[in-house]
Formats: sequence, C-alpha cells, structure tokens
Amino acid sequence: MIKIPVGILGATGMVGQQYITLLNDHPWFEVRYVAASPRSAGKKYEQAVAGRWHHVKTFSRNVGAIMVQDANDVGCAAVAFKRGDCSFVFSALEMGKDETRSLEEAYAAAGIPVISNASAHRWTSDVPVLIPEINPHHTDIIPAQQKARGWSRGFIAVKPNCSIQSYMAPVHALALAGFPSKRLIVTTMQAVSGAGYPGVPSLDMIDNIVPYIGGEEEKSEKEPLKIFGSIDNGIFKNAALPNISAHCNRVSVTDGHTACVCLEFGEKKPASMDEIKKIWGAFKGLPQEADFPMAPKQPIIYRDEDNRPQPRKDRDADKAMAVVIGRLRPCNVFDIRFTALSHNTVRGAAGGGILNAELLRHRGYLS
Amino acid sequence: MIKIPVGILGATGMVGQQYITLLNDHPWFEVRYVAASPRSAGKKYEQAVAGRWHHVKTFSRNVGAIMVQDANDVGCAAVAFKRGDCSFVFSALEMGKDETRSLEEAYAAAGIPVISNASAHRWTSDVPVLIPEINPHHTDIIPAQQKARGWSRGFIAVKPNCSIQSYMAPVHALALAGFPSKRLIVTTMQAVSGAGYPGVPSLDMIDNIVPYIGGEEEKSEKEPLKIFGSIDNGIFKNAALPNISAHCNRVSVTDGHTACVCLEFGEKKPASMDEIKKIWGAFKGLPQEADFPMAPKQPIIYRDEDNRPQPRKDRDADKAMAVVIGRLRPCNVFDIRFTALSHNTVRGAAGGGILNAELLRHRGYLS
Amino acid sequence: MIKIPVGILGATGMVGQQYITLLNDHPWFEVRYVAASPRSAGKKYEQAVAGRWHHVKTFSRNVGAIMVQDANDVGCAAVAFKRGDCSFVFSALEMGKDETRSLEEAYAAAGIPVISNASAHRWTSDVPVLIPEINPHHTDIIPAQQKARGWSRGFIAVKPNCSIQSYMAPVHALALAGFPSKRLIVTTMQAVSGAGYPGVPSLDMIDNIVPYIGGEEEKSEKEPLKIFGSIDNGIFKNAALPNISAHCNRVSVTDGHTACVCLEFGEKKPASMDEIKKIWGAFKGLPQEADFPMAPKQPIIYRDEDNRPQPRKDRDADKAMAVVIGRLRPCNVFDIRFTALSHNTVRGAAGGGILNAELLRHRGYLS
Amino acid sequence: MIKIPVGILGATGMVGQQYITLLNDHPWFEVRYVAASPRSAGKKYEQAVAGRWHHVKTFSRNVGAIMVQDANDVGCAAVAFKRGDCSFVFSALEMGKDETRSLEEAYAAAGIPVISNASAHRWTSDVPVLIPEINPHHTDIIPAQQKARGWSRGFIAVKPNCSIQSYMAPVHALALAGFPSKRLIVTTMQAVSGAGYPGVPSLDMIDNIVPYIGGEEEKSEKEPLKIFGSIDNGIFKNAALPNISAHCNRVSVTDGHTACVCLEFGEKKPASMDEIKKIWGAFKGLPQEADFPMAPKQPIIYRDEDNRPQPRKDRDADKAMAVVIGRLRPCNVFDIRFTALSHNTVRGAAGGGILNAELLRHRGYLS
Repeated sequence: MIKIPVGILGATGMVGQQYITLLNDHPWFEVRYVAASPRSAGKKYEQAVAGRWHHVKTFSRNVGAIMVQDANDVGCAAVAFKRGDCSFVFSALEMGKDETRSLEEAYAAAGIPVISNASAHRWTSDVPVLIPEINPHHTDIIPAQQKARGWSRGFIAVKPNCSIQSYMAPVHALALAGFPSKRLIVTTMQAVSGAGYPGVPSLDMIDNIVPYIGGEEEKSEKEPLKIFGSIDNGIFKNAALPNISAHCNRVSVTDGHTACVCLEFGEKKPASMDEIKKIWGAFKGLPQEADFPMAPKQPIIYRDEDNRPQPRKDRDADKAMAVVIGRLRPCNVFDIRFTALSHNTVRGAAGGGILNAELLRHRGYLS
Repeated sequence: MIKIPVGILGATGMVGQQYITLLNDHPWFEVRYVAASPRSAGKKYEQAVAGRWHHVKTFSRNVGAIMVQDANDVGCAAVAFKRGDCSFVFSALEMGKDETRSLEEAYAAAGIPVISNASAHRWTSDVPVLIPEINPHHTDIIPAQQKARGWSRGFIAVKPNCSIQSYMAPVHALALAGFPSKRLIVTTMQAVSGAGYPGVPSLDMIDNIVPYIGGEEEKSEKEPLKIFGSIDNGIFKNAALPNISAHCNRVSVTDGHTACVCLEFGEKKPASMDEIKKIWGAFKGLPQEADFPMAPKQPIIYRDEDNRPQPRKDRDADKAMAVVIGRLRPCNVFDIRFTALSHNTVRGAAGGGILNAELLRHRGYLS
Repeated sequence: MIKIPVGILGATGMVGQQYITLLNDHPWFEVRYVAASPRSAGKKYEQAVAGRWHHVKTFSRNVGAIMVQDANDVGCAAVAFKRGDCSFVFSALEMGKDETRSLEEAYAAAGIPVISNASAHRWTSDVPVLIPEINPHHTDIIPAQQKARGWSRGFIAVKPNCSIQSYMAPVHALALAGFPSKRLIVTTMQAVSGAGYPGVPSLDMIDNIVPYIGGEEEKSEKEPLKIFGSIDNGIFKNAALPNISAHCNRVSVTDGHTACVCLEFGEKKPASMDEIKKIWGAFKGLPQEADFPMAPKQPIIYRDEDNRPQPRKDRDADKAMAVVIGRLRPCNVFDIRFTALSHNTVRGAAGGGILNAELLRHRGYLS
Repeated sequence: MIKIPVGILGATGMVGQQYITLLNDHPWFEVRYVAASPRSAGKKYEQAVAGRWHHVKTFSRNVGAIMVQDANDVGCAAVAFKRGDCSFVFSALEMGKDETRSLEEAYAAAGIPVISNASAHRWTSDVPVLIPEINPHHTDIIPAQQKARGWSRGFIAVKPNCSIQSYMAPVHALALAGFPSKRLIVTTMQAVSGAGYPGVPSLDMIDNIVPYIGGEEEKSEKEPLKIFGSIDNGIFKNAALPNISAHCNRVSVTDGHTACVCLEFGEKKPASMDEIKKIWGAFKGLPQEADFPMAPKQPIIYRDEDNRPQPRKDRDADKAMAVVIGRLRPCNVFDIRFTALSHNTVRGAAGGGILNAELLRHRGYLS
C-alpha cells in the first residue's frame, strides 16, 4: 500500500513535534512536507528543532532532512500537492486566532484538506469538531462545507480542546446505552504541556497550583454541545444537554489531564455502579470496529484500585489514546462521581488529530 | 498576666511540632509539658526531635529542655497539673482511633481539658467540633458533657478536618447574610503535609496526582453538618443542609489545601457577585470581635486577580489563619463557583487548635 | 530455543517488579518462580502486588498467576530447581545486610546461582561485582569461589551501586584507550526511586534537595576499585586508582542518576575533547560484541547540546541501558569535566542484573 | 533620623520587586523613586505590577502609589535627585549587557551613585564587586573611579553572581584564619528564581534537571579572584588563587542555591574538622561589627545534622542573609568537603545589594 503524503503546519512547535513522533512508521500516512514560521523556513527540519526537541523519541532521518517551508506560503504547499508530496495537512499552527482561521481557509481553498488542532475553527458553523468514537457521522457536513465555500477538494475538520477528552467518551457511552447526562460539574487538574513550550513558568508550578487557564472553562462548557449536536441544513445545531460547569486548574504534571466529574442523569438512571462499569468496558466506536491504526483497542479503561487513575502511571495506556477512569461511586448531590484521565498531547492533540485523519480517510475524504 | 501552662500530647509529630512553633511567644499560653510515644519518653524534647524537626522556625531553648513524658501515662500529667505545669492539653496524638478516644477521655476524666486535632471524637454526640468564627456557641455543650460523664473540670473539644476549612467560612458568612447554601460540589487539591511525615512517598508526587485520600471525602461531607448543627438536649443535632459531594485529591504542594466549589443557594440568592464579595469582606466572627491573639484580622480575604488563590503565595496570609478566595463567578449548573485556600497545618491543624483554646479560655472553660 | 527458568527473590518490591517487567519476552530467560516476604507468600503474584504495582508496564498473565513463595524457604526453591522451574535466581531482597548475606549463601549452597542486586556481598573477597562492559573476566573467579565454599553448581555474583554506573563506563573506555584516570571528584543528583517505595517522603522533595544519602558516598568511592581490580590467588585485589571523592544528593527526579564529574588523568592525557568523544563513541564491550539481548547497541551515547543529558529526556536511551554523557569540556582544576546520566532502576538495578545473567550464561555458568 | 531617599531601576522585575519588599521599613533607606521599562512608565507602581507580583509579602501603600518612570530617562532621575527623592539607585535592570553598562554610567555621570545587581560592570577594572563581610576595603577604589571618569558624586559598585555566595564566606573565613584555599571543585544545584520570571519552563523542571546555566560557570570561576584581589594603582588586580572549577545545574527548587564543594588548602591546613567549624562559627565581618540593619548576626551557620543544609528549611536563616553549611568532612582527593546554601534572591540579589548600600553609607559614600 502506498502511503498518503502529509504535511504538518507548525511542525517545529510542541504539538508539531508530537505529530512527527507519532507519524513515524504510520501505516497509512507519511510526512513529506513540513512548514513552520518564517524563522525556521529554509532550514532542514533537524536544524530547525535543534536544541528545542522536547520528546524522548526522536524523528526519523528522512524527516530530519526535509527542508522546512514557510507556513504562510500556501502556494508552496500547492506546488507540493501537485508534486505528490502533500495530500493534506495537519495544522498545529500557534499563531493568533484570526490569522489561523484565514490561513487554514487558504489551504482548504487551495485544495488541501486541513485537519486542525487549533481552536480557530471550532465554532465555525460548518466545521466538524471530531472525536471519532463519538461523532464520526459529523464528517457528513464536509460536502456542504465545500459547496458553501466553493472548495472542490479542500475542507477543514478540527478536534476539540484537550481538557474535555477524558470525560466525553464515558458520558457518550452512557448516553448510547440509554442514560444521557443532564448536568455535569467538572474540576480538571491539567498538565503543563497543554500550554506548550516554554509555557508555564516553573516558579508557578513548584509547590503550587494555578487555579486558572485562560479560556479553558468556556471551551469545556461549550464544545461538548457541538460534538453531541446534529447537522441541520448544512450547519451544526448544538445539543441542549448536558449542562456543564468547569473549574480548570494547572498542576505540576508534565502530561495527562485529570478530571473529577459529578454527573446527573436525565430521567433514566443506570441500576448500579456495576452496570456503568460494564457499559464503559463494552464501549467501542467506529475506530475500534474499523480497526484504525491509531485507535486504542478499548477506548475506556476502568481501574478498580481506589487510587487510580494517576497521570504518571495511566496516561500512556494503549498508546496514550485510551481514557482511564477510576473511583466511580454514587454522588451525594448528583447521581454518580468518577475521576477520568487522558493524555493531553497524544489523545488530546496530535494523536487525536491522526485518528481524525484515519476517520476521514476511511470515509473517503482523504486520498 | 500569668500565662496558662499547657501540655502537648504527640509533641514530637508533625502537628505537635507545629504547636510548639506557634505557641512560641503566645501571650496567653506557655508550653510546660510535652508527651509523646514511649520511644521518645525520657529524652529532652530537643533530643527527641533531633533529625526530624520539619519546620523552618525552631523551638525555644526552654521547650527544648523539657523532658518528654509518655503520652499514655495520664497519671504523670495529673501530677504536672497539680504542680501547675499543665492546665490543659492540646492532643496531636497519632495513634489508632480507639486508643485516641479512650486516652483523650482518660485525660478529661483526670481533670485535664483536651483540645484535640484527632478525628477520634468528632462524631461523639456531646463533643463540639469548633471553628470559632462559625460555631462558638457550641462550647455551651461542655457542662452537659461534663455532667453526663461525671467529669468536674476536664472536657473534650475538637476541631474539624483540615480539608473543609477553606470553604466553611465563606459558606457560613453567606448563610449569616441570609443566603444559606443548599448544595455544594467540591473538589480539593490537598497538600502532602496533611498526611504527616513521612506521609506521601515522593514517587507518588513527582509528575503525578493521587486522586484519593482515605476517609477524607466522608469527613468533608459529614462534618459541616455537625458544625452548622444545634445543641438539642445535651447532644448535637446535625443541620439538614447543605448537601455536599467531595472529590479529594493529593497534589504536589507542601502546605495549603485548595478547594474548587460549586454552590447552590436555597430560595434566597444574592443579587450579584459583588454583593457576595462584600459579604465576605465584611465578615467577622467572635475571634475578630474579641481580638483573640491567633485570630486573623479578616477571616476571609478575597483576591481579584483571575489566577489566585495559589498555595505558595496565599497560604501564609495573616499568620496562615485567613482563608483566601478567588475566582468567584456565576456557575452554569448551580448558582456560583469559587476557589478557596486554607493553610492545612496552621488554620487546619495547630493554629486552629490554638484558636479553639483561645475561644474556650474566653468563655471561661480554661484557666 | 528453550528458555532458562529463573526465580526472583524479593519479587514484590520495587526492583523485583522491575525484573518482572524487563523479563517479559526475554529471549533467554523466563520467570517461573517468585519469592518474597512471608506476608506475600501463598498469594498469587497478581494479588501480592495489588495496589502496589509501581510500573507503567504491567506483568504478563503467566507471571500474575504464579504462587509467591517465602524467600526464606530455600528448600522450596531447591524443589523448584529439581522440578525445572528455577535454574538460578535474581536476588532483589530488601532485608538487612546480614540476613541477605546468609540467605544468598544458602541459595548458592543449595545449587542455585544467585545474581544479586543487594549490597551484602559486594565486599566479599571472592564475589565478583560485575559491569559486563568493563570486567566480564571477573566471572573467572567463580570456580575458586565454588571450590573455597564447597559449592558445586551455585555461586554468587553481584552488581555495583546504581550511583556509579553513569561514569564507570566512560572512565573505563578512556583507560582502555590508554588514558587511565588518577583522580575523580563527583557530585551526584540521584533519583528517588533509588530509595525504593515508600522511600523518600514527598515533604523532603518538593522545593527541596537532601544533600545526603546514607552509605552512598562510601560505596561510590570504594566499589570502582574492586571493579577495576584483578583476581589474585582466588580473591579480588583492588585497583590502586582512581582516587574518588563523591558528594551524593537526593533530588526531585523519579528515575535517572546524574553525575557531574571532574577527572584528572595520569601521565598520559588525550590530545583533545574530540579525541575523548571519539573514544566514547567507539567503545564497545563484550555485551555489544556478543550481542546480548539486554545490551545497549552503544554503551556510551554522547550528546552535543549544551544542556544535556537531562533525566526525563535521556534516561530511557537504548532500553534505559546506555549511559548518556554531555558537557565534556576542559577543567580549570583537573583535566576534563563532564555530566553523565544512567537509569538507576534499569541499568542500575534490574536491567544490570539481567545483563550480568546474560554474561554468565554466555560464559557457561548458567544453563 | 531622616531616611535616605532611594530609587530602584528595573523596579517591576523579579529582583526589583525583591528590593521593594526588603526595603519596606528599612531604618536607613526609603524607596521614593521607581523606574522600569517604557511599557510600565506612567503607571502607578501598583498598576505596573498588577498580576505579576511574585512575592508573598506585598508592597506598602506609599510605594504602590509612586508613579513609575522610564529607566532610560536619566534626566528624570536627576530632577528627582535635586528634588530630594533619589539620593542613589539600586540597579536591577534586565536589559542587554551593553545598554546596562552605558545606562548605569549615565546615572553615575549625573551624580547618582549606582549599586547594581547587573553583571555588566563586574569586570570593569575600577568597579568594586562587593561582599561586605569579605572585601569592604574595595570601596576604597571609588575616589579613583570617580576621578578617572570625571564624576563628582556618582559612582558604580556591584555585587557578584548569586551562585558563588554560599562558599565565598566560608573560604574567606578560613583564609583569614591562616588557611587560604588553593583549589576548589564546586557543583551547584541552583534555584529557578535565579533565572527570573517567566524564567525556566516547568516542562524542564518536573521530574528533571538541566545540567547547564549559560555563563554561570565562567562567572563562578572568575569573580572570586576579583573579590579576593587587591587595588593596584586605581584598578583591581585579581588574586592568583584559588583555582576554581564549577558545574552549575538548574534544579526544581524555588529559592536557594546549594553548592557541593571539595577544597584543597595551600601549605597550611587546619588541624581538624572541629577547628574549621570553630573558625566558621566565630567569623564576623564589618557588617556584623558595625551592626548593619541587613546583616545576619552570624554570616556562617553550621548545622551538625548529616542531611542539612536543605533549601526549603535553611534558605531563610537570619533574614535569608546567612550562609548555611553542613556535611563538613575530609575529602578523599582534596582536603575537605562540605555543602553550602545561600538564598539567591535575598543574599544573592536584593538583600546583598542593600547590604552593599549599608556598607557604602557606613563608609560615607552615600548620604
């Protein structure tokens, strides 16, 4: 099988590097085009990241030798597309919201599909926010998106904020089993890698917590409603429920966002904690059924020990793509409580983006 | 003024050391009797803590020279009482619940009031759980306690768990202003000093969170109801509300427990966030009115910056006895949300115990 | 090829668990016997470690089902040996020095070779302290050891302290190239996993350093002389040089000991820093030549960035078995300086033990 | 006594804030002029630091109300000087070396003495690098400095790098007692506050060490020779000894630099470890003899416990101005070894600067 050639925008940043690492040996995709800021453009990739490579695993010799292009230069990518070096791009751009939005649109207009980690297009009404286990059918909006904008081959699809990943799958699994959630109160304890590099100063993280992450609570409360929403006349219509309230904290952890969740069901409630564990253990989505390369075997792993999940021990479960849950118990105020963990730079960033690309290829939108 | 001579049970442990530190130069009390496990008994205090003194401040020469007694030997304390060296004791015992309960009762029976940090007697129906700003009138139960047990001078009074200190005062201040809480959902991020020494292994705290503290959630949900309760026929009757649900996590912080709170009022709700801040800023209790030495000038400090309170920067506010609050904002699910911080080994342990003793002396129960 | 059945003494402890993890899928050895304290004996391994499994990787179903034996019961191991379930043992015993010494001798006397991580026998005059890249010929003492003690098949071989691993290989490589060291001044910054679990209290490691590790400096100064020594008449004779002075510190790192080294050569000195890097890069020992399964391809990896090695980024290099070095530069006082890093629970503990076993099998002492 | 009005250049930065905090209630000096970057100029101080105040203690109302001036505007300071609001300045400038050098000279030329924390002038041949306990006589160069440059009242005096503070005093005390050092090998473990704010990224400090601090080792090796040097014909002449080799590491500690030192004496060596401890315990310099307000009572505190000094427990000793030493023991390679600790942002920055100002006022250079 011939691999699809892919490009990475923002390839030298934290998430861009994670893409490079995770796409090493990917059976369907092969990195052939890398673009970054003008400062890096014109250097070999290995030179551009020298001294600021953050990962334990390193990049392949092939990728290290690729010449970095200017991410602002869409024409350059269009040439690469024609040359067969860039069939679609992962966008890990770290510029302002407005620039990101226009630039991603320019790539799409040039015929290059954009699978984005940026938040710029999450609230664009015809752009799907995908979690392949939950709303794979949201890809159905793409033809409408293309039509409305006059794009032939290009389109934009995005992934949600990393902080909600740990509880979206369990909430969805319960809804699918007939127990939709009505209200959620969530407190997250989020890893510093979520802020990129240099990101959070160490003076703020030694013997300390920062009880605030700009914009994070708003995203946590709104994005799930789009993901659980439906397509109506070519645009997304948000779900009405669940109603969510979030506290987002930054804590001294490198990778892995933890969420403490209190959940109130609607009228129908599961009979027992065991029933819920069974629902979670049995849950599978399209990525599992279609056996996508990046998909975890089991999207939700429940641990029975009373002191799990823990970021250092559980974040890497099943290629860091599974959600690990523990401490399910009745809630004094709502119905149930639990603690959930997800790897924020893999499942919550580059790994999630790759899974989205696998879904889109499966659906025939990438080739 | 002649200082009241006090004893400390469990004087060599973490909380016992904190008592020694905080009572240095106390205007009303003077440490003259120290007791600990048989292993330490017979040594001078300075020898007994050599190599395991955990505080930045050190003990006075006088205290260092006191001979440590066996905490199990109540007779020894009774002799010290007669000699004028131990008018009452602070109990920072670290033994099992049952032993603690009986031992504290034995001291009280021997005529020595016990002001305890241990959890053993928190659910004894005639023992008050005191937060002097909130329920100073609960000391009124002492005569009934003494009568029921046939004690003449001795009695037992305790303080609540450290994890609830940060949100009890703000909740009480609102209730006092006419806005009682109906439901609370709380997630705490607790400091390792709460587990004593050696306490939490560093392998569990580097790049990690432990989402569980044994027994802590139950205490957090039940104790407030006793504190907000009333005395009925010589025993305590719990308040019916607020209904509380707690997640308790251990995080990599030395001192200072942080709580993220979502709160639902009963029928009456404050008009605005500003009204709430005004209520908190104006709140004063008996310790402030009577100007107790250990009392913070202002029990609740509100900070307007969006990233406060932070443990390292805010835990020491006003002798580490004030609660610091921030991030008050409307809640999507309940009425309001905020983050609260309190120093767990000062306000939440030895400082809180000393404030209780100040209250009890003020009320005439200690002399 | 049929795998050699091995046993693990102290299998439920930190290092014991690391053995289990690393021997999963080992091509030569298979865990078939596990022994631990009487408290664990009689339970299945998976039950014995429930709630205290410290690793990210888990054990195989086969190992989980093995019944834990009492490590004090040598007879039980002897039966397993006869049954073909325990051809030799890895000792990760965590008891006192004297008990460990006698118990390991008892296993050897019972015909079961002991490859030990414990420090008990490091100074026994006929027991080799092995680093397979450095002194594989020290296995030659085994026949003398067996003869002197009247053991037929059993023997004892040990590995050195974890804190010296990072600089022994580079010092040896230079000596081999004709540049023996005369004096070394070393300061280590050691990971908390070196103290086991629960080990170092988190109160000592948050915003702190502990500038002392009991016994560690003495070991660091003496053990290299035995490793660089020779066999003389059936016992080891220490090397005279290098003269070593060590400061050992505990820092807030989970895994990976870092050493800052100043080194003075004898009369012959390398011509340049580049010559030294070339020597290190080219260095290979018997494990590399004979291609042992646990051997790193390149025992010494030099990194040119000026801020490496770093524990979190470099400790896992080549299965966590390679030493990573950086910052080689001339020394103002001695000849050269550099910083070296080695994974203390893999190369410095279980991984090193397995490499020793591979060496001993290669030499025909295990079958 | 009327306080001398002082100005602070770079008043909004990390060290500038520390100056503000420490000068609160200073008996000799009063902050009346604050200057910072153009971005802060024109705001009240309290507005300029809003949201980026890093200290636990806060500034006084008076200082909060001062209008921040542009630090580049020397004329403005000259006006303040004439008005009686700025008799001299503390320079905590954070600009490039060349700009700092010229700007400090411009202030001095305008008649305003500059006491600087910046490294720009440390190697200017007629600028003293002061540690008041060690080289107070180096202030004698000031008349020559003024004459050579044509300055009447202004001059420049600086303090050394924070990383050498912990071992300069003990080395000096020994030299004074007749035991000069010949060679020193030092490894430091330095706090993140030394890099300012935002400074060191938390991703580099969680579960990690960075074995490199740009320029720090060079400074550590050279500056002591100037401090131990002499004035020769209006310029400084470096001491020949001790010869120093330094490894500088960044570790996960907020405040407090730790140094592990191996020291070789010249021909004369102290008779015993006890003699050395006695020398250190008895050591006093001019700040102690003349009882300067910022001076620690005892510049060198020795702790006998085998696991001290520790940053969190010892950095605040005597207003964070004392050096705390422990672990003195014979060295296998040199003569002695010890571990020393000093608070880098107090003794090593603003506190050291204030002590320099106290010295200079005592000598009549400030009024």
